[in-house]
Amino acid sequence: MKYRFNKVLGATLAAAILATSASVLAQQAPKPESLIKWRQSAFQVVAWNAGRIKTSLEGTYNKEEVQRAANTIAAIANTGLGGLFAPGTEQGKGWHDTSAKPELFKDGKHFGELGASFGKEANELASVANGGDVAAIKAQFGKVQRTCKACHDDFKAKD
Amino acid sequence: MKYRFNKVLGATLAAAILATSASVLAQQAPKPESLIKWRQSAFQVVAWNAGRIKTSLEGTYNKEEVQRAANTIAAIANTGLGGLFAPGTEQGKGWHDTSAKPELFKDGKHFGELGASFGKEANELASVANGGDVAAIKAQFGKVQRTCKACHDDFKAKD
Repeated sequence: MKYRFNKVLGATLAAAILATSASVLAQQAPKPESLIKWRQSAFQVVAWNAGRIKTSLEGTYNKEEVQRAANTIAAIANTGLGGLFAPGTEQGKGWHDTSAKPELFKDGKHFGELGASFGKEANELASVANGGDVAAIKAQFGKVQRTCKACHDDFKAKD
Repeated sequence: MKYRFNKVLGATLAAAILATSASVLAQQAPKPESLIKWRQSAFQVVAWNAGRIKTSLEGTYNKEEVQRAANTIAAIANTGLGGLFAPGTEQGKGWHDTSAKPELFKDGKHFGELGASFGKEANELASVANGGDVAAIKAQFGKVQRTCKACHDDFKAKD
């Protein structure tokens, strides 16, 4: 009886462990279309916040608005966007077909450098935004925009 | 001759000012479909980062991964998401038809309170993530998830 109980318990435990492992594996490897959707979303959020900064710098300057937007761009730039360009996502559809050029997946070193540059300049923008010096914010915002363009030029297909 | 010059210059200046004003106005009032697309994108980025935290807490804990993800959620939660639910966006299509319930636009006070609660708990999660105490992170992550659910229950239509 004791043996049988342990056998049943053992089988139940094994099934539970298998189910848990499968669940963890499923979480660790999101579907390619999810990764593509998330990276398309992340860049939309960057575009939204870049627009907020541009509007504030060209119209009536709102310090808090610029701080929030710059902080959001910095967080996204440094969150590990590279992980969303995992192997298997060279082609595919998130919200729409990926705009990533095939070259992106062949030159990880250059892509990584451009990503690091985006993160560095975005952090500096968030820092300068806290100071509230509009001329300094404009200059630093220009630097961030150039890191966007550099990466788009090399790795984003034209719409 | 001088009069004529000034008249031409004046007309040119007036046209330039009008063009600039129109441009600034256009920037200050993004299209409803842009606002809807941006809010759908922002919540996708939150979902992506919540998934990263969940995976790390349920699998092999990676402190830096959780810090980055928590920081991104906090930045988005506090960036002013309410502005993406401006009048005129009650219906419409961003990446897809909006999931916002009509009630959201009728009870701005309650929506604002739920948003503030999300921001507060997300900031606390980012803070706790820096400490690296997994049990504390799990508890605080649960609080953030409950703020998500509270808002979805009241203001997000079922898929």
